[in-house]
Amino acid sequence: MEDQGKQSATYDRLMQSIALFIRTNDEEKKIISTLFMPKQYCKNDYFLRQGDVCRRVGFINQGLVRYHAIKDSGEELTLDFGKEGEFTCNYESFLDHSISAVNIQCLEPSEILVISYENLQLLYEKVAQGQKFGRLICEQLYVHAMKKVRSFYVDEPAQRYLQFITHYPSLQQRVPQYHIASFVGVKPPSLSRIRKRLP
Amino acid sequence: MEDQGKQSATYDRLMQSIALFIRTNDEEKKIISTLFMPKQYCKNDYFLRQGDVCRRVGFINQGLVRYHAIKDSGEELTLDFGKEGEFTCNYESFLDHSISAVNIQCLEPSEILVISYENLQLLYEKVAQGQKFGRLICEQLYVHAMKKVRSFYVDEPAQRYLQFITHYPSLQQRVPQYHIASFVGVKPPSLSRIRKRLP
Repeated sequence: MEDQGKQSATYDRLMQSIALFIRTNDEEKKIISTLFMPKQYCKNDYFLRQGDVCRRVGFINQGLVRYHAIKDSGEELTLDFGKEGEFTCNYESFLDHSISAVNIQCLEPSEILVISYENLQLLYEKVAQGQKFGRLICEQLYVHAMKKVRSFYVDEPAQRYLQFITHYPSLQQRVPQYHIASFVGVKPPSLSRIRKRLP
Repeated sequence: MEDQGKQSATYDRLMQSIALFIRTNDEEKKIISTLFMPKQYCKNDYFLRQGDVCRRVGFINQGLVRYHAIKDSGEELTLDFGKEGEFTCNYESFLDHSISAVNIQCLEPSEILVISYENLQLLYEKVAQGQKFGRLICEQLYVHAMKKVRSFYVDEPAQRYLQFITHYPSLQQRVPQYHIASFVGVKPPSLSRIRKRLP
């Protein structure tokens, strides 16, 4: 009984996130919990390495990840973050099995529920609203990806910093300042100036 | 009977495209054909204007469209093309009802089968594999959008020209050279030099 309770707790946050998109019955919740495997990651462990093909989607139960890429010049660029309650994946690499141009690395010890490509196809087929879930998640990722791309090339660093603290209000204390500076697109001293100028 | 025949012919290409993704029965094909309305566009007519919200998806039955945006500097940038047998839409604007940053304009007289946001939700619900269709289309659009974005910032003009003629072998004669040059990211004389250098 205790084990069942623990197991259920492990999947609580995932079930809450899925419930934002679709309805599932108890039988389907059981199927879903057999398709996602909990994995523990230490700080600095990689969920995905640049150069590999992304073959799974993660649901961050606890912890924090950073998306980054090494440019040809050797410079490291922070592209995004992912926190508890969010899915993590290089979706493009996952969908067309292309080589990933980004790393996904844990900034903190993290628990991630991992589903393979094959198991995700099973979820789509075995859960009545599984396809709808896949469609809605894809639509959300599409809009998020397009906004991110536009922001990279259009927004000023100060705007990008404001978006960061708006979207991730809790992360300012958890993410080293030099990663935030890289995400915003400036050197750390410039980020300090941006922060001082904010009301 | 003749009318029915005509009607069926109007939707033939759409049904073939949908069949690449999902199975539909005759009843579902009828539903789909009531949800898409055929519309005729003259050359230079707009399917979508920059600044409007994109409220519909089009399936290009006949013709050719060009995606373009006017930059703050006033310069016009050709972003993409769409031809017979392809869906056309500003998907980001369509999904989150945001203002479109691009125009979709007909380069030729075109027949486009148009489905509204509301009718597309009906298709998802009323066709057994409708949600799966939505998921697969979204996945394809996601991968295409990401590749396009990367190409804009990474590829050299000659590579972009080669991609254009590979992806759209039939369009070289149908698209004015200055639009192709804009898509490739060069002035027309540079495009001529790129073409001369090709084997």
